[in-house]
Order: sequence, then C-alpha cells, then structure tokens
Amino acid sequence: MQNTQSFIKDNGQRFVDELLDFLRIPSVSADSAYDADTRRTAEWLAGRLTAAGADGVAIHETDGHPIVSGHKLIDSMLPTVLVYGHYDVQPPDPLELWTSPPFEPVIKDGNIYARGACDDKGQMYMHVKAFEAMQASGELSCNVKFLFEGEEEVGSVNLEGYLKEHAKDLACDVVLVSDTSILDNDTPSITVGLRGLSYVEVEVTGPNRDLHSGTYGGAVSNPINSLCEMIASLKDERGHITIPGFYDDVEVLSVEDRAAMNEAPFDLKDYQEDLEIDSVRGEEGYTTIERTSIRPTLDVNGMWGGYIGEGAKTVLPSKAYAKISMRLVPHQNSDKITELFQQHFESIAPAGTKVVVKPHHGGEPVVTPTDTAEYKAAAMAMNETFGRKPIPSRAGGSIPIVALFEQILSAKTVLMGFGLDSDNIHSPNEKYGLFNYHKGIETIPYFFHYYKQLK
Amino acid sequence: MQNTQSFIKDNGQRFVDELLDFLRIPSVSADSAYDADTRRTAEWLAGRLTAAGADGVAIHETDGHPIVSGHKLIDSMLPTVLVYGHYDVQPPDPLELWTSPPFEPVIKDGNIYARGACDDKGQMYMHVKAFEAMQASGELSCNVKFLFEGEEEVGSVNLEGYLKEHAKDLACDVVLVSDTSILDNDTPSITVGLRGLSYVEVEVTGPNRDLHSGTYGGAVSNPINSLCEMIASLKDERGHITIPGFYDDVEVLSVEDRAAMNEAPFDLKDYQEDLEIDSVRGEEGYTTIERTSIRPTLDVNGMWGGYIGEGAKTVLPSKAYAKISMRLVPHQNSDKITELFQQHFESIAPAGTKVVVKPHHGGEPVVTPTDTAEYKAAAMAMNETFGRKPIPSRAGGSIPIVALFEQILSAKTVLMGFGLDSDNIHSPNEKYGLFNYHKGIETIPYFFHYYKQLK
Repeated sequence: MQNTQSFIKDNGQRFVDELLDFLRIPSVSADSAYDADTRRTAEWLAGRLTAAGADGVAIHETDGHPIVSGHKLIDSMLPTVLVYGHYDVQPPDPLELWTSPPFEPVIKDGNIYARGACDDKGQMYMHVKAFEAMQASGELSCNVKFLFEGEEEVGSVNLEGYLKEHAKDLACDVVLVSDTSILDNDTPSITVGLRGLSYVEVEVTGPNRDLHSGTYGGAVSNPINSLCEMIASLKDERGHITIPGFYDDVEVLSVEDRAAMNEAPFDLKDYQEDLEIDSVRGEEGYTTIERTSIRPTLDVNGMWGGYIGEGAKTVLPSKAYAKISMRLVPHQNSDKITELFQQHFESIAPAGTKVVVKPHHGGEPVVTPTDTAEYKAAAMAMNETFGRKPIPSRAGGSIPIVALFEQILSAKTVLMGFGLDSDNIHSPNEKYGLFNYHKGIETIPYFFHYYKQLK
Repeated sequence: MQNTQSFIKDNGQRFVDELLDFLRIPSVSADSAYDADTRRTAEWLAGRLTAAGADGVAIHETDGHPIVSGHKLIDSMLPTVLVYGHYDVQPPDPLELWTSPPFEPVIKDGNIYARGACDDKGQMYMHVKAFEAMQASGELSCNVKFLFEGEEEVGSVNLEGYLKEHAKDLACDVVLVSDTSILDNDTPSITVGLRGLSYVEVEVTGPNRDLHSGTYGGAVSNPINSLCEMIASLKDERGHITIPGFYDDVEVLSVEDRAAMNEAPFDLKDYQEDLEIDSVRGEEGYTTIERTSIRPTLDVNGMWGGYIGEGAKTVLPSKAYAKISMRLVPHQNSDKITELFQQHFESIAPAGTKVVVKPHHGGEPVVTPTDTAEYKAAAMAMNETFGRKPIPSRAGGSIPIVALFEQILSAKTVLMGFGLDSDNIHSPNEKYGLFNYHKGIETIPYFFHYYKQLK
C-alpha cells in the first residue's frame, strides 16, 4: 500500500489537472443540445481509463447516451469490485447565478468550481486515478470492472437493459459507488439509506387559447390558479402529503433508531444561516434530519405558464405546467407512487380544467446492512485515511441504480462518497474540495485492500 | 354626409392596405427590444395623420414611448371631439400558437389576422380614415383633436403627466375612443362600464440558492410550493377573494339592474364550446355575464420558477415568481386594492419564505351615464349604420385612461368600439373583421354629425 500512496502523492497535481479537463466538457444529459459534447465526454473518459491500465475499454451505444466500460481481471480467485459512476451532469441553469462559467473550472479557496465537480465527475474520476495508482504500484488487490454511464441525471433509462444484456460480463461481488456525501471533512460517513424518486410532469389546460383576462377573467378557469390550488392541496397544514395511500408502505423506524439518527452532528442555526432562512419547514413531528432522510417528500422542481416576459400582460392563459418530484423511503415503490399521484391529481382537477400527468423516471429507495464485508471494508478504509470510523447515515437523495444492481447482478452496493451537502450539486456554483478529491483517491485503495482480506 | 360616405366606399381597399402597413410594425411597448419599432410606428402614424389633413401633427417625447398628436380646428363655436387611441400592442407570445406570423398581417375569411389588428391599431386607424373622409368631403362637423399614445398596454404610465402639462391644448367637450367590443355584428353596443385594474408582480424566496431536492427536500420551504399555497389561499371554495377588505367598496347592483344585464344575448353552451371547456367557473351566485363585468376578479397572468427546460431536474429552487392582476369594479380604488393585496400577501408568507410584491400599473373602474349628448350621439350613429339601436353594456376589461380624462380634462368619454370578444386580443391569432373596420369608419362621421346637433 505504501507504493500506491506514494504514487498518489507524487501525481496529485496531474490528477487535478486531468479532472479539470474532464469538467470542461459539458455533458448535460437532459438537454439534447449537448448530445455531441456528452459523447465527447464518453470518448475522453474511455481514453483515460485505457491510459490508467484498464483492459477491454469500450463505448457501448444505447438508445440514449453511451456507456463506458473496462476491467482489470488479475486472478479469478480474488473478489471482483464493480466501480460505477456517471459522467453526465445536471443542466447548469440558472446560468446568471454562477460566479464563474459552469464549464470553465476554477480553483478557489481549496475548491474546484464547475458543474459536475462533485456530482459525479470528480467523485467518479477518483476511482480511475486510484486504480491507476494501484496498477502502477503493482498493488491492485481485487479484480476490478468499470461501468460509467451518461444518463444518471435523466433516470438511467437505458441502464436496466444494458445490465440485463451484460449481466455475465458485469458479474461481481460488490458495487462501489462514490456519489454521496460525508457529514463533514472531520466526520466521515457511509450512506446506508437512500430515498427513491417519482418524478412527473403535469399539464393543466383551461380554455383552448390564451384569453384577455379582462374579457374572460372571473368566469373561466385560469389554469395557473387551478394548478396552484391543486399543488397546494397536495399537503395539509401539518406538511403531510394528502395523496390517498401515499404513506401506506412507509417504513416506520423505532424510537431508538430515530434517537440514534438524531445524534448525528447537526446545528439548526448553522443550517438556517447557510441557507439564509429564518425557519425550516416540513412535516410536523419530525426533525430536519428525519425530514431529509426517513420521510417522503413532495417538491415542485419547476413551474411555468402565461406571460413570463418583461412588463405586464393581462392574459388568462390556456396552459400551465409543473415538474413535481416525490422522494420515497423504504418500502415505498416508485411505480405505485407515480400511479397514486396520477390518479389523485387527475381527480382533483377543478371544473373547466383538463389535466395530463406524464411520468418521468423513477427510482427505488434503498437501505443497506452494516454487518457485511463490503460495509466493513469501506469503514476500515475511511478509518485509515480520516483517522476516525465513519458514521452510517441516510441520505435524502436518490441513486436509483442501487436497486437495479441488487436485482439484476445480485450485488450489494457500497456508497462511499466524499462530497459535502454544501457542494451545491444541482445548483449554481457546484464545487468539490481538493481535500475531498485527494482523500477519496487515497481511501479507495484501502477499500480494495480490506475487502480482499474480509471477503 | 353623402360625400363622406361615398369617399369611404371609394377608398375602402386603400384604407385596408394602409392598416396592413400599420400592423407590420411591431410596436410591443412592454418589451424594450421593440423600442425602435415602437418609435417607427409613432412616426408612421404621424405621417398618416398629416396626410389625412390634420394640422400641427407632433411627436411628443415622454420618459417612455412617444405620444402623437394633431388637430383640425374649424370653428371655435363648434364642439370639440378628442379622439384617443393607442398604437402600441401586446407582446405576441406564445409565438408558436399563431397560425401566421403576428406582424405579417393576412386576410382570411373576412378577418385581418395580426397582433394589434383589433387592439387597438385597427380600431384607432378607423378614426384617422373617418377624419380623412369628412375632411376631404368638406363635411367635418366638429373640431377634432387627436391623442395617440404608445403605452396603453403597459399602463399609460406617462399619460397622466402629459395630460396635465397639455390640458389646455387638449381641452374638449368629449373624448371618443374605439377600443371595446360590440355584442355581435348584428347587435351593436356601447360600453358604459369598464373594470379597473391592479397588477402586481410577486417574488417568493426560499433558500438563498438552488438546492438539491433530495438533500434538502422536506425540510426547507420550496418557494414554488409556497407560492402555490399563497395563490390558492387567495380564493375560498366559493370563488370569493379572501384579501381582507377587498369587497368593501364594491358597487352592489339592484335586482332589476342585474336582471336587465342578464337579458343580453348570451349562450352558455356556445361560450363553452368556443373555449372547449366543459364548465365555466367563478364566484358563486353570479352568472357569467356578471362575473365578467360587475364582479372583481383575481387572475395569475404568468408564473415561473425552478427548472423549466427539457427533461427532469431535481432542484429545490431559490425563487418563484408570479404576475397577478385583479379586475376592479366601481367604486373600488386601484391603489387601495394594490395596497391591500401587498399587505395580505406579505402576511401569508409561509415560514422560511420571503415575499416581495412589486406593483405594476393600475387603473380605475368606470361607469358612464346614458342620458348625455355624447352617449345619444353615439347611439344614433350606430343606429344609422347598423339599423338597430345599440345596447348599453359593461365590459370586463380596463381602459384606465377614461378616469384620467374625467379627472384632468373634465371630459366624459364615449366608448364606441367595433371589435368582438372573440377577436383574440392579448392572445395568439388576434383578428379584426373587415366588416367591423369598414363599419367603424362609416359610423364615426355620424357621431360627429349628431354630436354637433345635440350639443
């Protein structure tokens, strides 16, 4: 392990420079305007993977963005680690709130600022560099396979088919993913729970054309007012979601589990100050930690309708739209929740209003046990580099592919991420700490080392 | 009058061609991108006014778009008619719903399709042409002054100052405006009531930056959800507006007045079919005619926030916005209602949410008597050309300048419009009937004729 760690130290600057190159290619999967860039990103990544020492590196076509794979199989008696990551990024909007352009990375105060810096280019490239170090030092202790997709931010729509088709090639003992956070730079943690996701887009139609609000206002259902009513009615005054059946399958935690969870370091005052809000707000009877991990949510992610230009226009519009997502907790099912939403939302359309609900992607919630070889290996690795045992934690986000790996590859996933909740992923000014990038590269080889011992 | 009417008949095609030229200049006052075009429109109009025979035609600078004026004073003993109109138009959005480009007028099935065809270029240009006909025929029977502004669609913000400064030049006995509708082409009507307007823009801020909805969702006030709640709460289940004090000054009509009003030709089935809605919706206890004329309203004219691009983005946005307008009825006051809205809206901001309310323009409601020389002259003129006495009616829209004329020039306004409610003003595919354009040009000289007799 000494050689590996020395190699990492000696090549630290180069590892950063390469990441900056990776970040310069705008691989926005949600927007077809970036399709050529997204492909270029896959090609760049395949090149780096080969250069790091992987065999059989390939770019696989899908109906969407390509998948990049490769491997290093050193001994069939050794365990096999499948490393998963995604090279696509969130759209950079709203652009005007970035202090530097999203695809021109800059380093400031120890952080790399760029779209994808943390989610997930930075975190995934740590694995390529850790592999290069282990390989160059002759200290690779497990077989390794790489699976990098370009559609995570749009629901990994083509991954399931790919996994099924290549299940044999991807056979592994564990899936290792860095796409989550630690509690802070002094408090390592491993994510053992993730929320699932149902994401829908709704279209509300009032009259068949935009109308003059003076001539028709007061008599004709205004689709924006109607959509507001419908959305407002989805939660009651206690912050409880009102969709019938929504909570039926929600996992109920014991008093002890909730108490343990609330011992994680958390300062409400700091949290509010960081967000410049005078109060948090959520489901009554739950703490902020619980509201963002063990409880399901419903958020409008986007809404638009009518005249949104400069000045005033007195229009009663024909249509209004919203993108709405629900975070799900164990044992809720994404398809079932999407269907409950759809049925309920259509049923509450006010008179004179038509409603269409279009499901986007979904994903299943996840909880992983902590008494397994893979969890222990990750915990020991982090203990080695942070000097402190990580805390098992639940994240509020979703990585829908974790359920897929379990289902198709029968493999458990270890979510050993190195980001921070304050890294502004999915927001303007996304960043990733140089500390975190280097720490991740140092930690990953220890995971391989301990996993081989424990497995 | 024979010479005038012959002149109109002989020049009908030219009058249409000139209007098409007028419609080709995109004078969108709300959007500064069109500022040069809006000025060009004023210049074009000034040229046509001079060519029609007006004296002293001038383009007056304001802090916004210019005002065009001119006059023909034939005898100080004769009454003076001030003709008002506006050469600016509504924004053409949403462009994709137009079947022909908004600033490339086409004639189809007897209608001119273009932004501004009816509101108000078409209706206002009737006056220029009627004047030309009276002038050319030597049959002008009153003094006439013209006042054409370019900011009606943005609240006539500079008109009040202009009227005050030029009150002496604009002294008149009556103001004549064509910017309203008739009930249908067989049922002439004169507008004797108009609703006022309060128009505000609201900005709701949750967290100080866009957040990942997985990491923060459930604990932090989402400004779109909050704005939906706030907007939904502005009306109760009976369609009544909940702003405290909102109805305090609303004029209450007698049972008889309401019964008379409901005898106007109106077919609910046709109305719903035209709009493709299965039901109307509004304040309980009032008919559609009442809801759109004697009752105040609250409509969201535009709303936006979060991710509104292609695909899905799981963002908990920092900000959400809405443009909200309220139509007012006699004796409500626009400034007072705007203030009541502002106070109330700020007071209902949910925890963790900041709200800013920015007033746009407003305008006062109007009712005009029917026992005056000007109303009678307009009624006789319409009777002459339609072969039928017009019905006094109340319109749902707002022409805020009517209150200004009363206040500053001490002059009553006659709203003798020739449009139809189905002309799609403020909507895609705005149109104006050739029948209506020609009928207006024929009717206006009769107004001058009878007004001189009655005054």
